[in-house]
Amino acid sequence: MLVAHGSRREESNLEIESLAQKIALYKVKEFEFVMPAFLEFAKPSITEAIDNCTVIGATKVTVLPYFLSAGVHIAKDIPSEVKKGAQKNPNLDIEITDYFGSRDEIAEILLKTALNIS
Amino acid sequence: MLVAHGSRREESNLEIESLAQKIALYKVKEFEFVMPAFLEFAKPSITEAIDNCTVIGATKVTVLPYFLSAGVHIAKDIPSEVKKGAQKNPNLDIEITDYFGSRDEIAEILLKTALNIS
Repeated sequence: MLVAHGSRREESNLEIESLAQKIALYKVKEFEFVMPAFLEFAKPSITEAIDNCTVIGATKVTVLPYFLSAGVHIAKDIPSEVKKGAQKNPNLDIEITDYFGSRDEIAEILLKTALNIS
Repeated sequence: MLVAHGSRREESNLEIESLAQKIALYKVKEFEFVMPAFLEFAKPSITEAIDNCTVIGATKVTVLPYFLSAGVHIAKDIPSEVKKGAQKNPNLDIEITDYFGSRDEIAEILLKTALNIS
């Protein structure tokens, strides 16, 4: 579950859906489905997306926060929403990964962007 | 110039400063200095950072927007602030790169994060 903040701008939310589809195209055996979810401004919410996991027969859910910095959304809001969803879906084994901005590769990608290297 | 949104949370802004320093450590010849700048909530602003470029004797400035999606900040706010800074500092050759979220590597990094691969 790729969790983004969500935007009032529909195009931004569509970018997240496309990104989830792009991740799904890697077809790794660990993730049978890749779905987007949003903290605010867009659907599905995190709890709705967790409900959907049960609907599609999932047993294990990996929640991946697509955020650049470790603000209150990472520290409190996402864990809180995940907990609500987990309580309603006790059948699911749910984990939350590191947030995207914690990745070491980011500095190098920024450098490549600045150098206009694809 | 690594341009981030800026946060009311000081720790988030410090993350951006650390990231700028991390990029500087690559010591590529194209970028003698790597400095942070913020659209909101933190200092220096984009126009202040452009003024600082003149102070340190820069002639060329590459503005790199550290944003995940192509919202109004990418489309309007950052170009508008850069234009103000450029008008005040006609000595500088300033370009704005693609925003970070446009990078193709992101899907793969997200997948690695989900798989807990460093």
